[in-house]
Amino acid sequence: MKWYQKEIRLPAVKRGFHLITDLLEAQLPELEDIEVGLAHVFIKHTSASLTINEDADPTVRQDFESHFNHMVPENQSYYRHTLEGSDDMPAHLKAAILGNSVTMPITNGRFNLGTWQGVYLCEHRDYASKRTVVVTLQGQ
Amino acid sequence: MKWYQKEIRLPAVKRGFHLITDLLEAQLPELEDIEVGLAHVFIKHTSASLTINEDADPTVRQDFESHFNHMVPENQSYYRHTLEGSDDMPAHLKAAILGNSVTMPITNGRFNLGTWQGVYLCEHRDYASKRTVVVTLQGQ
Amino acid sequence: MKWYQKEIRLPAVKRGFHLITDLLEAQLPELEDIEVGLAHVFIKHTSASLTINEDADPTVRQDFESHFNHMVPENQSYYRHTLEGSDDMPAHLKAAILGNSVTMPITNGRFNLGTWQGVYLCEHRDYASKRTVVVTLQGQ
Repeated sequence: MKWYQKEIRLPAVKRGFHLITDLLEAQLPELEDIEVGLAHVFIKHTSASLTINEDADPTVRQDFESHFNHMVPENQSYYRHTLEGSDDMPAHLKAAILGNSVTMPITNGRFNLGTWQGVYLCEHRDYASKRTVVVTLQGQ
Repeated sequence: MKWYQKEIRLPAVKRGFHLITDLLEAQLPELEDIEVGLAHVFIKHTSASLTINEDADPTVRQDFESHFNHMVPENQSYYRHTLEGSDDMPAHLKAAILGNSVTMPITNGRFNLGTWQGVYLCEHRDYASKRTVVVTLQGQ
Repeated sequence: MKWYQKEIRLPAVKRGFHLITDLLEAQLPELEDIEVGLAHVFIKHTSASLTINEDADPTVRQDFESHFNHMVPENQSYYRHTLEGSDDMPAHLKAAILGNSVTMPITNGRFNLGTWQGVYLCEHRDYASKRTVVVTLQGQ
């Protein structure tokens, strides 16, 4: 039984949905030690999130940004948490809807994802700095 | 410490929300070897998803379909990823909102679910074929 | 390798979003035995949910309640599951959108959360009784 845990600093990105699968794998050579296991990726922030979706056509990620802006609009009259800007409260809500962690199977030293699946970093703030994830790998 | 991992092919279902708890348990006799552990079920697709909700009244699952069609409509003017049909981009969005995996406690050889909980396969495409999940069981 | 699993009864709370991080940690002295691991918290209900978000400003939690009531309204004409009250079907939908479990890294005997992160119990029913979570800790 093996456990690996490390914090990874992700580069600052603009508001929107960004693929980070390759970036994660490049920083996790320990994956190769695990034949069967699980990878847990946890973002230590409340206005950015992680999800897994289509990694081929970039318009999918653009439509994610459009739809989440429509479903969780800025400047709603019922928002009371407004001091940090109009993008702040929607960012918290989007983060909760999408989720702050993903768990992926590990098989033969790789994330066992579907053909069209990739990990998205979902950045919900207008001007965000680098984000930190804690990656926990376990398996045998 | 025990690890089991297997891919399970789910039968093709029509668009909507479908209970698969019994189907999963029937394909996982290894559950009986685990007294305390976790079960991770991961769907290898980006237009179908997994969630856990009420397993008794079928109208709950019908209302899930109605509400998700309302909250994530087809043919929004801001969609750019439209080549694969009007149901495609909403399917990606619904999949991200509901999530592509569930993790359940295992206790005494069974999924430790609440009285009214069941695992849903959420099929968001109009004409989908069989879906594949990777199930990872671990425990002692 | 260590495994701990226990059910924790959460106090009954009013409809809304409530911080339970301290309550969980207080009931989990076993955390201190784990240097590197994962904590899985699973709610055994279909009309309450768990998420992780901003734990500092209470207006964030108020805005969560406002927004989820707006995004998943009561009394929609398309609801068919209405016998248990107008808050019931929205509660099931909110629970699925937010999710019924959270998984957190454990590092040096503590939940390894970001500075502003806390665990929310999201109570979606008007008159709910106590809720039960199953906590599974694993690590070394």
